[in-house]
Amino acid sequence: MENYDSSIYDKLSVAVDLLVFTIENDALKILMVERSEDPFANMLALPGVFVGIKETLDEAAIRGIREEAGLEDIYFEQLYSFGEVERDPRMRIISVAYMALVPIEKLNFHAGERTLSAKLVDVKELLGSDEKVAFDHKKIIEYGRWRLANKVEYTKIAFHLVGEEFTLPNLQKVYEILLGKSLYKANFRKKIAPMIEETDRSTSGDAHRPSKLYRLKDEE
Amino acid sequence: MENYDSSIYDKLSVAVDLLVFTIENDALKILMVERSEDPFANMLALPGVFVGIKETLDEAAIRGIREEAGLEDIYFEQLYSFGEVERDPRMRIISVAYMALVPIEKLNFHAGERTLSAKLVDVKELLGSDEKVAFDHKKIIEYGRWRLANKVEYTKIAFHLVGEEFTLPNLQKVYEILLGKSLYKANFRKKIAPMIEETDRSTSGDAHRPSKLYRLKDEE
Repeated sequence: MENYDSSIYDKLSVAVDLLVFTIENDALKILMVERSEDPFANMLALPGVFVGIKETLDEAAIRGIREEAGLEDIYFEQLYSFGEVERDPRMRIISVAYMALVPIEKLNFHAGERTLSAKLVDVKELLGSDEKVAFDHKKIIEYGRWRLANKVEYTKIAFHLVGEEFTLPNLQKVYEILLGKSLYKANFRKKIAPMIEETDRSTSGDAHRPSKLYRLKDEE
Repeated sequence: MENYDSSIYDKLSVAVDLLVFTIENDALKILMVERSEDPFANMLALPGVFVGIKETLDEAAIRGIREEAGLEDIYFEQLYSFGEVERDPRMRIISVAYMALVPIEKLNFHAGERTLSAKLVDVKELLGSDEKVAFDHKKIIEYGRWRLANKVEYTKIAFHLVGEEFTLPNLQKVYEILLGKSLYKANFRKKIAPMIEETDRSTSGDAHRPSKLYRLKDEE
């Protein structure tokens, strides 16, 4: 670290921007807000908060998830920091992006408490379209989408998108949505078998046969 | 993003701290500098620079690698941002850590140009000892060490620690050092076979039989 004389060094603002992912109607969705004023008025943006001088990055993320998405106690992790000089036309703001994952049930439950007009946007549709998104948020979403698909391969991250108990077809569907491809049932089950355990419950079986409910193993 | 009134939001300083890893004498080493003044005078610290108002994070990392380590054109990637409130006793500074990997030959070649008294520190010894390191840099090194081991499993990152041409025993040694365990030669060679190709050169064979030199395949 260089020697430091506070008078000669630049100060910047730092924001935490939130990628809150969920799965709804068999599609990956992300929570976005419509901006009410310039810059980028009426365009979609990621929810976010400025990092306060007495606040860690994680604390700012937790506050943002609560204030902007009306959610508590959901899984989140730091994703990447974006620091293009002109990314915000107002001033220099470095964005530390956080990714959060939440099962749709929990998101719907909290919808009434949301303070902003947050809405769920289909990630694939958004990224495949010409729709402009505020700031560099489209690039940030693209990066988050890529990292999520990547982590699905070698971590248990996908389990944060299902409830605590899930059926195997439901879990497979989540994996397929995140990976963007179909999986062979036998291969999929072999791969996840070491991570899960049966409960003694099943889904109630309206038109379908009841499906066994599973949960993530506790260990490690 | 909240609406913004520049008078009421806090501004912070942002630094880029550099984890320059190399392998020397069969051990993972990291480039560190001895601090000449308080805070943490005479303690080891990561090299780093403050991010200028007109500079992206990557640009600051490139500048830091050049100014503090005397290196150009080496592999680097952003690692993680550290934002504990009290991590620097002087003022609030958020650190965006970058990890860089360089073969020891390149580091030695440039040693004469280094402006600071940078030196190579054995990572395993440092992390296993009680030695205090400036700021939260020991924690940052621990995180970098973990991430590096992790990425070795599913990326080609280890190749940045060998020269452009390498022998298979040399490459295996690098993998073993990063993973912290011995590997079976047959399994290792099967795993890396798709990534590499033979050159028409061999090491000259003093006491040993000459070893074929390989390089990373170009594709993708």
